Amino acid sequence: MPLNEFDIIATYFKRPHLRDDVAIGSGDDCAVLCPPPGKRLLVTVDTLNEGVHFFPTTSPFDIGYKSIAVSLSDIAAMGGEPLWAAVALTIPLPHADWLEDFSKGLYACLDRYQVALVGGNLTRGPLAVSTQLLGACDPKHYLTRHGARPGDLIYVTGTLGEGGLALAFLQNPERFKNINAGQQEQLLKHLWQPTPRLAEGKLLSDIATAAIDISDGLIADLQHILEASEVGGVIDVNALPVTKLLPEKASALTSGDDYELCFTIAQKDLDSLAEISRKTACLMTCIGRIEEGRELRVLENGESLPLTGTGYRHF
Amino acid sequence: MPLNEFDIIATYFKRPHLRDDVAIGSGDDCAVLCPPPGKRLLVTVDTLNEGVHFFPTTSPFDIGYKSIAVSLSDIAAMGGEPLWAAVALTIPLPHADWLEDFSKGLYACLDRYQVALVGGNLTRGPLAVSTQLLGACDPKHYLTRHGARPGDLIYVTGTLGEGGLALAFLQNPERFKNINAGQQEQLLKHLWQPTPRLAEGKLLSDIATAAIDISDGLIADLQHILEASEVGGVIDVNALPVTKLLPEKASALTSGDDYELCFTIAQKDLDSLAEISRKTACLMTCIGRIEEGRELRVLENGESLPLTGTGYRHF
Repeated sequence: MPLNEFDIIATYFKRPHLRDDVAIGSGDDCAVLCPPPGKRLLVTVDTLNEGVHFFPTTSPFDIGYKSIAVSLSDIAAMGGEPLWAAVALTIPLPHADWLEDFSKGLYACLDRYQVALVGGNLTRGPLAVSTQLLGACDPKHYLTRHGARPGDLIYVTGTLGEGGLALAFLQNPERFKNINAGQQEQLLKHLWQPTPRLAEGKLLSDIATAAIDISDGLIADLQHILEASEVGGVIDVNALPVTKLLPEKASALTSGDDYELCFTIAQKDLDSLAEISRKTACLMTCIGRIEEGRELRVLENGESLPLTGTGYRHF
Repeated sequence: MPLNEFDIIATYFKRPHLRDDVAIGSGDDCAVLCPPPGKRLLVTVDTLNEGVHFFPTTSPFDIGYKSIAVSLSDIAAMGGEPLWAAVALTIPLPHADWLEDFSKGLYACLDRYQVALVGGNLTRGPLAVSTQLLGACDPKHYLTRHGARPGDLIYVTGTLGEGGLALAFLQNPERFKNINAGQQEQLLKHLWQPTPRLAEGKLLSDIATAAIDISDGLIADLQHILEASEVGGVIDVNALPVTKLLPEKASALTSGDDYELCFTIAQKDLDSLAEISRKTACLMTCIGRIEEGRELRVLENGESLPLTGTGYRHF
């Protein structure tokens, strides 16, 4: 297959899109875009490396899908709306089947959330995908990590633990004989094709005082909120909304790849929160409370758990 | 050295910057930026991989500097102004010395062009740097590859061949005994710390009909202009402004890593061009002419050269 980089881009990465805010997409030195007037611009970059974030056995479709989905989750955590993506793809050698399947996964996620692919680049090297996602948010109402105040309640969307359980299952399927084929499929879909909480984040941007997406694990990510907000907090393991497949609830504390939102909210806004939960059909569960101080306490059956491993660390 | 990703970012990649259009920089799920009202947004992504774009012997400072400079060159080729950068850095293992030197190079280039580092991410894997650069341009006056018309003249900025010669020298220093130490230093500086033609691109955006930056080699990059503009062209090797160190002028045709601009301009605008050349103290050399048809002809001493290798290809 005598594919060169320009043929590859023309064959697999040029598709029409529906956005009219793209003056020039891929094919020039830069993309030329029309930012929505009066909004702030959101920018996030994520990299997936083979052997670290996915495996030689991971389907190219899933690698493509997830590379967009994880960045969308960052946009969701700011309460923003995604607009455009650019993808830097590094591959050892071009294979038509691989590229076809990868681009299908990429576009499946892009199209689902009406994001236009506006550029990127293709280089030779060990397999890696670096995605930049651009979005917009209201200049006043967006979510950050630094607004949590003592007395606020700590919430999470959806259920926790699926991402970490899926990874554990892939590493050692023999340990999970209790998980049937349908459940396996659901877990792996959660791992490779996570659902960014975009609608939820956008609605929460009016009321949440702080937010983050759970990618490294609940404790690690909640710690970022506490540090940025200069507060402490307490969470109750018994309250965690955890997938029934997980043998122990506490393991959801450090389970990565959930891509749910963890956010804080003042008591006075609980009615609005209930309304958002209803509108989005998304479970929103109170798991704890923001406190004075700088410490994170984790309770299980009324006892403090010692905090050791706190989540995924790259090094 | 027990550095984790958060320590690394805090230690090496958080510095104050002078831009007041950054509402939130690194440290949240996304950067929050204020795009300049009434402008278009420019986006470009470039990746440098060890073993392909740089070598185990390349200094971390140079890797950092070049990772920003090549993307700035894309902004220059659109006639834009650079604003913000995000860097996805993949490293095998964190070493304090390496990170220190890399971040110095990165900031040396960022600071020189008043670009704010607003985010990025750090992952473990084979050494690679993927940079996204965001800039702005006038909504009407920006440079593209598709505006060249028959009769336009083809120009390049500066001199060609230094980048390719520096690479050839690194691969086989014995072959270049005629190049003295001072010249070596100058060549390597050109290769690793290229000067993006930002001021030139911005002024040219009023008059050039098409433009591209020369990263893959003059012929390969000029071909992009011809293809996008649906025209042909003729260039004269004898007219090429080539470094005196290059043994044969024609080798500048396929020499990559020059980061000069190749652009086209109508005859009527030659006076304005002379003024821009004077203002920027940048050599601007006519090397050919746009023609009807779709072919690129290359003349040397009045004879047509056969076109074989046309520049750097990643695969």
